[in-house]
Amino acid sequence: MMEKQHRDSPLFKASDCVTMAHGSGGRLSTQLIDSLFKHYFDNRYLAQGNDSALLGLGRGRMVMSTDAHVISPIFFPGGDIGSLAVHGTINDVAMSGAVPCYLSAAFILEEGFPLVDLERVVVSMAMAAEAAGVAIVTGDTKVVERGKGDGIFITTTGIGFLDDSVNISGDLAIPGDVVMISGTVGDHGMAVLSKREHLCFETALISDSAALHGLVASMLEVSSNIHCLRDPTRGGLATTLHELAEQSQVSIILDEVAIPLHPAVRGASELLGLDPLYIANEGKLVCICPEDEVDALLSIMQAHPLGKNAAVIGHVLPKQWPPLQMRTPLGGVRVVDWLAAEQLPRIC
Amino acid sequence: MMEKQHRDSPLFKASDCVTMAHGSGGRLSTQLIDSLFKHYFDNRYLAQGNDSALLGLGRGRMVMSTDAHVISPIFFPGGDIGSLAVHGTINDVAMSGAVPCYLSAAFILEEGFPLVDLERVVVSMAMAAEAAGVAIVTGDTKVVERGKGDGIFITTTGIGFLDDSVNISGDLAIPGDVVMISGTVGDHGMAVLSKREHLCFETALISDSAALHGLVASMLEVSSNIHCLRDPTRGGLATTLHELAEQSQVSIILDEVAIPLHPAVRGASELLGLDPLYIANEGKLVCICPEDEVDALLSIMQAHPLGKNAAVIGHVLPKQWPPLQMRTPLGGVRVVDWLAAEQLPRIC
Repeated sequence: MMEKQHRDSPLFKASDCVTMAHGSGGRLSTQLIDSLFKHYFDNRYLAQGNDSALLGLGRGRMVMSTDAHVISPIFFPGGDIGSLAVHGTINDVAMSGAVPCYLSAAFILEEGFPLVDLERVVVSMAMAAEAAGVAIVTGDTKVVERGKGDGIFITTTGIGFLDDSVNISGDLAIPGDVVMISGTVGDHGMAVLSKREHLCFETALISDSAALHGLVASMLEVSSNIHCLRDPTRGGLATTLHELAEQSQVSIILDEVAIPLHPAVRGASELLGLDPLYIANEGKLVCICPEDEVDALLSIMQAHPLGKNAAVIGHVLPKQWPPLQMRTPLGGVRVVDWLAAEQLPRIC
Repeated sequence: MMEKQHRDSPLFKASDCVTMAHGSGGRLSTQLIDSLFKHYFDNRYLAQGNDSALLGLGRGRMVMSTDAHVISPIFFPGGDIGSLAVHGTINDVAMSGAVPCYLSAAFILEEGFPLVDLERVVVSMAMAAEAAGVAIVTGDTKVVERGKGDGIFITTTGIGFLDDSVNISGDLAIPGDVVMISGTVGDHGMAVLSKREHLCFETALISDSAALHGLVASMLEVSSNIHCLRDPTRGGLATTLHELAEQSQVSIILDEVAIPLHPAVRGASELLGLDPLYIANEGKLVCICPEDEVDALLSIMQAHPLGKNAAVIGHVLPKQWPPLQMRTPLGGVRVVDWLAAEQLPRIC
């Protein structure tokens, strides 16, 4: 498929825009689907040409996840709404321990959206899906009038298959467990914010958007006793840990100095008064496991390109108030709240 | 679940609206998910509480379909965006002959959208899903700023399982086959248009929005040789037949007097200068099969509440130009074009 990324002649002129007719189901819809989506997503499922895709079943159990992507701006350092829509849903499937296999993609386009931008997004999705070994098997395209949308929204739904021996869930953390993160926190949110607000920093802020199922697969090879995996997206690490603490009916204590933080994210956070604990990540995972699994897991994570800054960042305690607290560098302990709202809207 | 449709006290006040915080991933997001989505969609998959749902596998092969729903207005005679989002995706899965089992639902809400309307839509989805025997197993909710959306968009993705013996696809029509429709055409589109334009007709125009998998199941009981099934949604019957003719590399001739048409739709179409052949349906299917299957299929369709006006409406010819033509009441034959765009935007 990669050779298809480069057409001999451009598909669209710079002035070509999405029209209501592209969402009509008529001839123009079909042309858009054939020339753009089928061309770039090219696979035998999509080629079936029906309103649904007929797929082979994997073994074990099935995992399904869906995500609507409304990020603004749609192009940001390290990715775009297309790669994000592929990575985000793959990761939600992967956090169960399942192997992601199939994606659907539904586009809601605003009348007037430049077709060259749509092509750029579709190419990015195709490349992200191919790199991840996942096929985009079915889709839908709708168009809304100018002012009734915001350029492009993409909803992806993912299907994966899970070996019967794997049992990972947000409600399985128990006191004594160790909390790990696969790398630096806040990279995605700060990269998007810097682009949105036209901020310039000395060091580049780049989104960590990535598909994590390869990292998960390598972790499952060395441990059959991972309790929880979750990707700390909207709401960041703090929100994810609150969710896990509530689901497992436990409490969690973090060690502030252990939490990996990119210097540029640290600097930008201080400048803007934002707490990186609440800022979205799109290529990180939290892993909760028994103490005796930590060495093997940490080694294999650190050996993987997406886990090289992996670290132990906290421990699970019996349920108590507060559900989430953090040991500060000076040795004190502070409460880490569950925010009512996130600091940054439309981050994914 | 039905008893949950009636709360003792209302969940929201009339003035309560969606805020950006409802899409933040923080505490308000969680409250909305728990009080609304988990409450009404209530099932053991959703109750898992992870970012994905762990599901049992059916037998045979799997079918996946997705649809973004952007209909305007969201409430219309005979349904709303919620029931439509359930029926539309169930039908796309059912047209392969598969039994729909699981749905995901992703909501894109506009800041300021009334929460009472959201609850009404969610209740409608829950009732439609329960009536269809399908579980809404996972979901996502995003919020965009006022003016960047249009109240509510819902993307549903459906999974069904298909017996290995069933082989139905848009490319299987052959010359000599018979074309049937399960009932009157244009009901959905005209009902939405009448509501949108505040038109009043003597006879009520009501959407035909319905889940068709029960009808398909009864058809599969009497015939193992159905070639094509498709629901003529956006673009109506004419567009669907053009798609099937192209996919199967055949031509189709329709018999105009045989096409069932509700008198109110006929009247409204004449008044508005719209051709009901191009108007969307949401509870009808086109069936193409060999001549010797027709009697059994037509009988079973007409015995089903959703097929009581089923009729033979045309025949499949060898590929020729035009791909779609129609015998008129006076005995002439006219070309039925593939429109570039649909007559009615945002009809589903």
